[in-house]
Amino acid sequence: MKALELFFNPRGVAVVGASSRPGSVGYVIVDQLRKRFRGKVYPVNPKYSEILGLKCYKSVEEVPDPVDLAVIAVRADLVPNVMESVGKRGIKAAIVVSGGFAEVGPEGEERQRRLVEISRKYGIRVVGPNCIGVLDNHSGIDTFFLPEDRLKRPPKGTISIASQSGALLSMWIDWMAMKGMGLSKALSYGNKVDIDEVDALDYFIDDPNTHVILMYIEGLKPGRGQEFIKMARKAIAAGKPVIVLKGGRTRKGFAAAASHTAAMAAGYEIYRAVFRQVGIVEVDEMEEMFDVAKAFTMLPLPRGDRVLILTNAGGEGVLATDFAERYGLNVVDMPKEVQEELRKQLPPHVVVRNPIDLTGDTDDERYRIALETVLKHGAVDSVVLIAPPHPPAMTGAVVKYARDCMDRYGVPIVAVVTGGVIAEEFARKFEEAGIPAYGSPERAVKALAAMVKFAKAKKKASSSQSLS
Amino acid sequence: MKALELFFNPRGVAVVGASSRPGSVGYVIVDQLRKRFRGKVYPVNPKYSEILGLKCYKSVEEVPDPVDLAVIAVRADLVPNVMESVGKRGIKAAIVVSGGFAEVGPEGEERQRRLVEISRKYGIRVVGPNCIGVLDNHSGIDTFFLPEDRLKRPPKGTISIASQSGALLSMWIDWMAMKGMGLSKALSYGNKVDIDEVDALDYFIDDPNTHVILMYIEGLKPGRGQEFIKMARKAIAAGKPVIVLKGGRTRKGFAAAASHTAAMAAGYEIYRAVFRQVGIVEVDEMEEMFDVAKAFTMLPLPRGDRVLILTNAGGEGVLATDFAERYGLNVVDMPKEVQEELRKQLPPHVVVRNPIDLTGDTDDERYRIALETVLKHGAVDSVVLIAPPHPPAMTGAVVKYARDCMDRYGVPIVAVVTGGVIAEEFARKFEEAGIPAYGSPERAVKALAAMVKFAKAKKKASSSQSLS
Repeated sequence: MKALELFFNPRGVAVVGASSRPGSVGYVIVDQLRKRFRGKVYPVNPKYSEILGLKCYKSVEEVPDPVDLAVIAVRADLVPNVMESVGKRGIKAAIVVSGGFAEVGPEGEERQRRLVEISRKYGIRVVGPNCIGVLDNHSGIDTFFLPEDRLKRPPKGTISIASQSGALLSMWIDWMAMKGMGLSKALSYGNKVDIDEVDALDYFIDDPNTHVILMYIEGLKPGRGQEFIKMARKAIAAGKPVIVLKGGRTRKGFAAAASHTAAMAAGYEIYRAVFRQVGIVEVDEMEEMFDVAKAFTMLPLPRGDRVLILTNAGGEGVLATDFAERYGLNVVDMPKEVQEELRKQLPPHVVVRNPIDLTGDTDDERYRIALETVLKHGAVDSVVLIAPPHPPAMTGAVVKYARDCMDRYGVPIVAVVTGGVIAEEFARKFEEAGIPAYGSPERAVKALAAMVKFAKAKKKASSSQSLS
Repeated sequence: MKALELFFNPRGVAVVGASSRPGSVGYVIVDQLRKRFRGKVYPVNPKYSEILGLKCYKSVEEVPDPVDLAVIAVRADLVPNVMESVGKRGIKAAIVVSGGFAEVGPEGEERQRRLVEISRKYGIRVVGPNCIGVLDNHSGIDTFFLPEDRLKRPPKGTISIASQSGALLSMWIDWMAMKGMGLSKALSYGNKVDIDEVDALDYFIDDPNTHVILMYIEGLKPGRGQEFIKMARKAIAAGKPVIVLKGGRTRKGFAAAASHTAAMAAGYEIYRAVFRQVGIVEVDEMEEMFDVAKAFTMLPLPRGDRVLILTNAGGEGVLATDFAERYGLNVVDMPKEVQEELRKQLPPHVVVRNPIDLTGDTDDERYRIALETVLKHGAVDSVVLIAPPHPPAMTGAVVKYARDCMDRYGVPIVAVVTGGVIAEEFARKFEEAGIPAYGSPERAVKALAAMVKFAKAKKKASSSQSLS
């Protein structure tokens, strides 16, 4: 059984430190589980006999079957004793939400050492300590201890996230909810005494609800590098992109990360080299991570690196071309027969190279002609479709044309829609049709380039997996 | 008189090619001028005697005084004759909106040559051809030929923009309107037969309503490099940041730009070197341009490069530190006495180095203590204030504390608020208090770093200006 199975899919959960005080960590966790989790929930606290309508137990040892997971939210100094009870009760998985361990200095380190000792003695797998734990939109597990009026939960989806920072993870969750991006599972392992990035990958690889894997990594635990590489390769071979945001890339960032989460296995240069070699998609900024994830969840993989930049705004075409070239996309020249066919169908002032510039007086029909002609000839593997919503002759039909072409030719299309309120409405129409839309050409191109990189890495990983 | 004075501040405007057909270019220009422009508006079109309640003239030559500017929106082949009339009428400024010149090949090039010839003969200054012209939120000049229901206009403000791409400019205008960012003047010169970036800078330098200058440049006209450098230096010495987004930075981007707008004086490496040397703030992406502009319009300049990163989320602190180091900010160690004073006032698990990590259980008071203590000692020149809205003990008082500290110590503060709907509300509160807020630490740090660079360049430019 995979290490994380009991965390994401327990039959029952004991919440140690459950509370009836609204807003407290022990209250919110019970409340969220009660509302969302499909298995049994057992509050544990000697002070209460009932919490939120659920029977409350004096100790973990009293909790009945079925129970596979303990969520521990008590003061740090009480955690070792609780872990002993968890072990005695035969529970094999614990999420230690409590802070006050290695992150607070020598005293906490000692406490953390005891926590590890006890968990090993009983064979308990541990998430944490000092973490927000797990959120699973499919099983309903949710230990994120902020109520939904403060922290929204995203809809069910296929993106799973593992993050060394709980705060970042919770902010992203809230952001995804606002954007309507679908989440499968989220995991924050805090001080990482046991469960780590490798376990996360291991689980996500076989999870049918996970298609795209996002990770915020400050540093792997020493000795885990090889396992991480192996798992990442396996994920990629299985067609699941691994998208990483690395914290601690500079000297001072590294120092800040070291004071944030203790373990630091290697300098950034090594990570960077590994990411490249393995085919992990490294992103530079947090917003880019979601731009990229969005493309992966909506589009077929490009079959190669040739891209068409189709615009009606010369300047946006230029910026898209700059970024395409910088990020390794091939802004191929249009074959002569394509140019000739376009020439015949489009007004003389339209530029039929690449970018194709339909110019400011375009209508939807020009977009249809350009898409159809280029894709029919198999001249590119992807399209950056720059479609400003402002020209009066643009009715929005371009959305349908793009969708239709994507279906018939299997070529991914990303849309660029820049502007204000009308642009946002137009972008929504693209996304409702399954075409990811971005507010700038730079962001769209980066997302598409990540897909091209992944497609290459997948090919490579698949062939080496089948050899081994 | 500055070349652009008649364009931004004419006493009267003749609109040649005025139309009474709603939605047409000639209609929208008259309508916008009628509604917004504080001077006289004269529609010109032999087909009408009246347009939108205004008397319509048969030809430019019939237009009465006062008239300083002609806006020309007729078919390309009619433009030379119209320019003759403009010259004969003694009008010294013309915006040629019409396309169909150098951008469409040999025939257009010939037409453009004639246009230039005629304008020189009469001493007419020209914006365009193939452009959207000017928008001045102060005088009310607006030739952007899209009605406000398709393209919103931003509120009055202090940002002025000059763009080689009219489409980009109009999309940005629409975007600024949605974001409530204040615009002073916008200018698009299309094929740039006359008025160009140098004239724009020249005008913005002395314009009291312009504090921040944004430019999208594909290529200066040959021979204009030295003038551009001189004007940019002068703007910077006058305390006006010049923020440039360069199109055509790669080989293919350069080629695309060449087919978009003809003139290309030099390769990107030369531009880049000049931008650096002069102290022009070059941005990498269009969104960054506005992130940076926002900081400049709201904040005092930092006195040096030392930055405090104040967070309650370790991961965001790490990412902010990475970007600060990469973009040339100095994440200084906190002096010993500051650390000791913080130690005394804050809980033991708070990290009092830099970043200062107030940790997940923070309240507003910890932020107040940290800001007050660090700034009182003059330990930094700027602050990246990472303030997640989710922790239950955060009431929003941090906004007031930050504003108060900024006022008392004159140190610029940028806020980072990451998350969904609650985060956006929180960000709005910061901005209402005059503190720019960003959705990610990366974006906030880049904006702040641009200010530090500009402050240095300004010092340098001021001293060399006073020497010359």
